[in-house]
This record gives sequence, structure tokens and C-alpha cells, in this order.
Amino acid sequence: MKVVAFAGGVGGAKLVDGLARCLSPQELTIVVNTGDDFFHFGLKICPDLDTVCYTLAGLANPETGWGRAGETWNTLRALEALGAPSWFRLGDQDLATHLERTRRLGEGETLSEVTSFFCARWGIAPRLLPMSDDAVQTIVETDIGDLSFQEYFVKHRFEPGVRGFRFEGAAQAAPAPGVLEAIFACDVVIFCPSNPWVSIDPILAVPGIRQALLRAKVVAISPIVGGKALKGPAAKMFAEIGIPPSAQAVALHYGSLLKGFVFDRLDAEEEVEIRSLGLQTLVTDTVMQTIPDRQRLAQEILTFVQREFLP
Amino acid sequence: MKVVAFAGGVGGAKLVDGLARCLSPQELTIVVNTGDDFFHFGLKICPDLDTVCYTLAGLANPETGWGRAGETWNTLRALEALGAPSWFRLGDQDLATHLERTRRLGEGETLSEVTSFFCARWGIAPRLLPMSDDAVQTIVETDIGDLSFQEYFVKHRFEPGVRGFRFEGAAQAAPAPGVLEAIFACDVVIFCPSNPWVSIDPILAVPGIRQALLRAKVVAISPIVGGKALKGPAAKMFAEIGIPPSAQAVALHYGSLLKGFVFDRLDAEEEVEIRSLGLQTLVTDTVMQTIPDRQRLAQEILTFVQREFLP
Repeated sequence: MKVVAFAGGVGGAKLVDGLARCLSPQELTIVVNTGDDFFHFGLKICPDLDTVCYTLAGLANPETGWGRAGETWNTLRALEALGAPSWFRLGDQDLATHLERTRRLGEGETLSEVTSFFCARWGIAPRLLPMSDDAVQTIVETDIGDLSFQEYFVKHRFEPGVRGFRFEGAAQAAPAPGVLEAIFACDVVIFCPSNPWVSIDPILAVPGIRQALLRAKVVAISPIVGGKALKGPAAKMFAEIGIPPSAQAVALHYGSLLKGFVFDRLDAEEEVEIRSLGLQTLVTDTVMQTIPDRQRLAQEILTFVQREFLP
Repeated sequence: MKVVAFAGGVGGAKLVDGLARCLSPQELTIVVNTGDDFFHFGLKICPDLDTVCYTLAGLANPETGWGRAGETWNTLRALEALGAPSWFRLGDQDLATHLERTRRLGEGETLSEVTSFFCARWGIAPRLLPMSDDAVQTIVETDIGDLSFQEYFVKHRFEPGVRGFRFEGAAQAAPAPGVLEAIFACDVVIFCPSNPWVSIDPILAVPGIRQALLRAKVVAISPIVGGKALKGPAAKMFAEIGIPPSAQAVALHYGSLLKGFVFDRLDAEEEVEIRSLGLQTLVTDTVMQTIPDRQRLAQEILTFVQREFLP
């Protein structure tokens, strides 16, 4: 089965890791949100690419889900001693990723090329693509003004009320090489349980991607469980936009793009309404606390796809 | 006594530290070579400024003379794991300096402003100025082609034969704010025992500085002792340029800029010839192995200046 997975941060990384444990490397292409990317201290930082890569490489911090296992913070402490901004937690090992990415981009490599190099170094076998090699910046429009995503998410701990979103540069961006081809060639596109507003929507905002999906079978996994996000501001964003957060709200958000929808047993009561949207559904345990959880959920999703969509 | 000290790397930093222990902060202005500055991984690195600052702040690694005491190398190890260039030894704490400098320059601060901020943070009381806020790049012309100073010095361990030097950008550079004023107002300018070719000459190449020195009393301390450099390629450079390295060769190199010259007892036999150049001389122990050595040498130089030049 040929699978394309769209992923953002921690939740997406976990499911992608599960998929990588169920599929051969040739069967899986991962498209990662780069709307969170930003420059900090002159370095290009790609939080979602890093989270997905560290997770797939087995380098991720199992406690936080982001950053690296066994990380040290000596540079950050020295930055704090200088009174430098320390809201973005730069670990010593993580810094090497930002430094080498910045150096390679400065030598003219594209983000795809750098990502491909890192994946080879880290022994990541599936194909992993940034959504675009062009700069797209997710702006969160809030009560205290426009904030870049990292400012909103990390610096302001997603406390400001959200009014809307925009993806600066998206209209001029092109999908990274291989993204559209992978979508056209795949059996299913899986929207990982990532934040619809700021992890999946930026990918959909890159011209050509949404249109390519019209010909694909798309299955989304709800990041909202029991009306709450497992992590991060997804539920809060729905509420502030004026939509009660629920699995159904996620399905409605993606609308006619979807053919299938996977959501948690905790929300089983929503199944009738979700099916009434014309969607095939899978109700299961979607919370991935352990690595076996990731593999089990991925396998269930693949079995569901096989049964419902692949003749 | 108002003193201006021109300094490069480790030797210069040691004498400047000695001077700072003998003079009140108001009496000492330090002008530091920035011809070694370069960009690495997108970060602005100023090796001589860092060495002088770390030394004055008591943060320097006492074994190496460069870098920071108690340094760790976690980022560098992660860079090596990525196959990234690791010839420039980036310590975890040292990295914070480069990161915050790069960030502040990116926000529009000048190198002088950043340096002044760092000095305040690190409790460095004397005035410390980069030679210029404009980019000047020391190029070492070698048998294997032109090399930036750090490439020559660190990457190639100063092995290639030297044919000449040039200071790119110097003609368009201006002295940093305060440099000329300090020279005009001082009683003596001290050329620290730094490399004449690549530590002091870049400072002299900044338009206006050499001319300002014509009105000043300049005393140089020889970095050549017993025909050898204590550290680094100064003696090798003299030899490759075709000049037998000696204290006298250093005095001749600076020529008519000098009024006084300080050199080691080991070279005492050169005194007659050096005095025949019209220079007042001080022959003493110039090798600074301990912190008391720095203070003792600095005090001897100041006493010599007082006796010979200040009526």
C-alpha cells in the first residue's frame, strides 16, 4: 500500500513512527508542515521537521515528545547568563541540527536536500519531505496582535485568544519536489492527529496540494479526544474561533477533502453524525502513550483503509 | 596615565589583563583586531574579541588561552555525528556568545554596541573596542591559495607557506567610535605581544588609525622571543616572508611608528641594534605564564613608559 502522511508536531510524529513500523520504506512518504519554521539567533529552525525526524530516528526525548533524548542545556544556560532570549529551548544537541541546516542552506541546498541528508545520516528510511522548499510562515492572529507560530506557541504559551490564521508566503510557495507526485501515486493520504489549524492547514495552503487531494483518498485522524486536545492548542483554537471542539468539528473542518475519519472511542457517540457527513469511520483508541500504541493505531488505520477504500 | 592597547589573540589578551590589573578602568582603552572575524554556520564569530573578553572576565580556559573554562562540547559532538565541519572548535558556552552576538547584529546593533553590552554583562570595566564596526577580513596569501585567517590558522594549522597578507574591506572601513579619540587623548599606545602580521597590522590598515599614531607615543612588546613565537605562526610568517624572525625584526616591522620597544632578556644581545633604530628599550621577562606574570610585565611597561616618555 502506498501511503502519504501529512504531519505536524508531536502527535503527527508518533503516528508517522507507527506507520513506519507497519510499512516498507518504499510504501511511505511523509509530508511535514514547515509553517512553524523561523529564524532564531540567525539559525533556521524547523520544529516540526525536527520532531518528526528525531522521533523516526529514535532520538526524541520520550518525556516531552520534542527535543532530543539525553539533551543538555549548556548553551542555553550561557545564553541566559547573557540575558539573551531563552523562551525557545535550544538544547546543545538540537543546536547542531539548526547549525548544520543553516550552513547547508547558506551553501545553496534546498530544505528538501538538507532534510534528505539528515534522514540518511539518522537512518530514517521512509521518504520525508518538507511541504515546500519556499518560506511559508504561519501567523496566528490574536487578541494581542499577529504572532508567528513559535511566538504564540512557545513564547506566549498559546495563552492569547485566537481570531484567525494566515500563512504568509503560501500563495507564492511551491510544493517541495516529490510531494504532488507522491499524492498522485498513493493509495491513501493520511492526515495525522496534528493540529488542523496550524499543522495540516499550512500544508493545504501550498498551491497545488489541495487540488491534488481531490483525486486522492484522504483519511484524517482526530487530534481532539473528549473535546480536548491531547497536547497543544487545537481545542482552544476551535473554541476561540467559535466552534465547540469535538471529533465532528475536526471532520467538518476538513470537509469534502475527506473520505474516511478515525476518532477515539471516547467520542463514539458522535459516530452517527460523522457518518452522516458521508465518511467511512473507524472508532478506536487513538491516544498513543507507548511505542506499541503507535504501531497498533497505525495498523488499525491501514486495515481500515484496506477494507473501506482499496478494492 | 591614559593607555590605549592594541591586541589580537592570546598573548595580547594576557598583557591587556595585566594592564587592567594595574590601571583604573578610566585609564585603559583596548582596541581589538577583528580581521579574524568570520561567519560559520551563519553565526558571526569574533575570535580575538572573545579571547580578550573571556580573559578579562576571568572566563577563559587557563590551559588553552582561548575558549572558556569548564567548557563542554555537546553541540560539537552532535555536529560531528552529522558530518558537519568541526575544524573550528565550538564549545557549548562559547556558542552562546556567537548566537547572541549574531542576534543583536541582526537587530541592527553595531559590533561596538554588542561588545559593550557583553563587557557590561561580564563585568569588564576598561573600555574595549573592536578596531572597526565594518567588516575587514584578513586574507593570508599562501602556497595553496588565499585563505581566510581562521581557515589558515585553525583548519590548516598554519602549515601552508605564507606569501603575503591583505585586509579585505579595510580601505572602506572606519575606526570604531572612540578609537581615534582614545588615541588622541592617550599618553601611550601599547602594541601588545600579538602577531604583527595578522593581529596588529589589520588594526593599522583601518584608515585613520596609522595617521593618528603619528601623534602618539607608541611602545611595542615583541611577540618573538629567542627567534620563536610563543604561540602561533608569527616567527614562521617572518621566515616565509624572507625576514629572519627576531625581536629586532618586529621593531623594524613597525618602523617609525614606534618610540619604545620591549623585548625579552633572551634577546638582550639585540639591544644595541634596536636602540640604534632610535628606540627606547626595556629588556625584561616577557613570557607570561601566570596571572602575576601578566601584572608584573604590565607594571614594568608602565614604569618604563612613565620614565622614558612622560615628563
